[in-house]
Amino acid sequence: MYQLAMGTRIRRSPYFEATQAEGVTAFSTYNRMYMPTSYGDPEAEYWRLIEGVSMWDVAVERQIELSGPDAGVLAQALIPRKMDRCKVGQGRYVPICDHDGVLINDPIALKLAEDRYWLSIADSDLVLWARAIAAERRLDVQVFEAQIAPLAVQGPKAEDVIASLFGDWARDIKLFWFQETEVEGIHLYLARSGWSKQGGFELYLSDPTQGVHLWNLVKEAGAPFGIGPGAPNQSERVESGLLSYGADTDSRSTPFEVRMSRFVDLDAPDDAVGIGALRDIASRGAARHQLGVLLPEGPMLPRYDSWFTLTRDMEVVGKITSAAWSPRLKRNIGMALVSTDCAPGDTAQALLTEGPVDVQFVELPFL
Amino acid sequence: MYQLAMGTRIRRSPYFEATQAEGVTAFSTYNRMYMPTSYGDPEAEYWRLIEGVSMWDVAVERQIELSGPDAGVLAQALIPRKMDRCKVGQGRYVPICDHDGVLINDPIALKLAEDRYWLSIADSDLVLWARAIAAERRLDVQVFEAQIAPLAVQGPKAEDVIASLFGDWARDIKLFWFQETEVEGIHLYLARSGWSKQGGFELYLSDPTQGVHLWNLVKEAGAPFGIGPGAPNQSERVESGLLSYGADTDSRSTPFEVRMSRFVDLDAPDDAVGIGALRDIASRGAARHQLGVLLPEGPMLPRYDSWFTLTRDMEVVGKITSAAWSPRLKRNIGMALVSTDCAPGDTAQALLTEGPVDVQFVELPFL
Repeated sequence: MYQLAMGTRIRRSPYFEATQAEGVTAFSTYNRMYMPTSYGDPEAEYWRLIEGVSMWDVAVERQIELSGPDAGVLAQALIPRKMDRCKVGQGRYVPICDHDGVLINDPIALKLAEDRYWLSIADSDLVLWARAIAAERRLDVQVFEAQIAPLAVQGPKAEDVIASLFGDWARDIKLFWFQETEVEGIHLYLARSGWSKQGGFELYLSDPTQGVHLWNLVKEAGAPFGIGPGAPNQSERVESGLLSYGADTDSRSTPFEVRMSRFVDLDAPDDAVGIGALRDIASRGAARHQLGVLLPEGPMLPRYDSWFTLTRDMEVVGKITSAAWSPRLKRNIGMALVSTDCAPGDTAQALLTEGPVDVQFVELPFL
Repeated sequence: MYQLAMGTRIRRSPYFEATQAEGVTAFSTYNRMYMPTSYGDPEAEYWRLIEGVSMWDVAVERQIELSGPDAGVLAQALIPRKMDRCKVGQGRYVPICDHDGVLINDPIALKLAEDRYWLSIADSDLVLWARAIAAERRLDVQVFEAQIAPLAVQGPKAEDVIASLFGDWARDIKLFWFQETEVEGIHLYLARSGWSKQGGFELYLSDPTQGVHLWNLVKEAGAPFGIGPGAPNQSERVESGLLSYGADTDSRSTPFEVRMSRFVDLDAPDDAVGIGALRDIASRGAARHQLGVLLPEGPMLPRYDSWFTLTRDMEVVGKITSAAWSPRLKRNIGMALVSTDCAPGDTAQALLTEGPVDVQFVELPFL
């Protein structure tokens, strides 16, 4: 285990002091912010998410705001989906691609108003991309990183916690939709969202000085339901087949490779960046796809921390992009990006540091 | 101290195993790679850099390659300096600005050929920016992150180490110039460069499988000179007034605010992104500038890990962006981004967590 060097280049979350008080033990970085990853008891954190309710500092999910008369034009230019179908108050999971159709982020796009959008981003500097497209196309729109800090409440009991804090109306919020609201004078947007398949909400806090206050309100409301601290959970998200941009993608990945085909509208407007390339790729078919992989037991697991190459008959067929111990399946599992020649049920060899081992492909998600 | 969570989203360096063998204890992340920051003895690492020679894994300095017929056109579009003056084999420290003149990176631009450039970047996804500008302007150029891993050799004895490894011809390389060469069959570019003011070289390795090999060759050549492992050194770089993009800049910073005026050519071509805005800002004058700051002794130092606000007569005048213990000055020092109303010799109050303290502004660099 290595120490994390802390400085001013990578930013703290408005919830930082709250997570310290909860006993956070480890961090990663994401979008140049410190992101809690563990409170020292991975097993408890996992089961709290699966069976109860967990609260996460995910302020690292930065909001890129598009604001002004051409906000809608820019949103459509950036997103190869038909955005005219998106209503105010609605969010949509979308691929963002470059002009070659390569995936450069996979945000939730939230439409706050006809002239105001947020892109709730994964780990890449989408603000630079969006600002370049806007300026080069001379659009009348401001593009900036808004000072918004999401707090996630995830797990089967998340809805009860949120309803007790905000009222029963919150139970009616549909997936990815959101509502402007407040609690004890703290302004926020409440969305049904979150990076797990266990259900839950995200609270988009706009006043960073209220981070600890909001954390404590949620903690108090969640106490009767056994809430506790957690973080985006590697075991759960691999079981659920959730994409981690930058881990499960590489510099060639298209949406079609990583099970995002249904989030591309091939009849999106022609001026959407990358749509021409995406139509071409769709018509000839992607060369790679994403599969689950059953990994052997053994001391080198449960955690890989680099990519392992996969071979078949001495030929490279792809790589394992993520791996984790699954407490529910009681085995090591992973996600792989491999040639479309590989199918569920097939086997391949994973070139671990310790030597090659046999692995089997399966459908995603695992659970 | 917190643990660093390691995964596949943030990448390892080709020197990773070598730094492990050297006893690396702490990492930060930079351009989504793990960057060693300490080998457990900060004092020894500092003096090795100041008085001897130090070797650093700076593979995090990613090379954004511009390659193809329009590479030069794109380089000039991205850089508000007159790039026609840059010769093959030469590197130049350059600001990269958005259309509003805001600094979005401060790389070394290396001209490898008339149709091939590298931007050796600071910590932002410049590849997205460059690719958007290239595509929107329909330029005939490839833009990608090249698989190049710099190894820095820094300190007053660095030249002796490099000359003993490559030959005395290396002593003639001028600042920021570079030469294609090889050592024991390892292909690399050798540049006089590096993120310290103690002098030195960077070895741009192109074959990642040769990282440990190259590390060990440099270590062996450096042994007679007392070489040891190190990392970009916060104390030395604050003493030297070296900019850390993302720490010493914010979302409004222009080159003029952070002592980069001499790296902007106001008569650069009109199609250089941001040049119009930079001319406007230059004519009306920047509202902020960068000063050194003498910080008080005390247990809350030597290391700040967030920005502290600076006030004068109860009004905010700026912030401390970096701070460090200076072993040579034997005191705490910092860099501040403040109103141009503040001048060297003036005092202000720094709002630390523990309460306000008086600080004094000085010229940069300190040493």
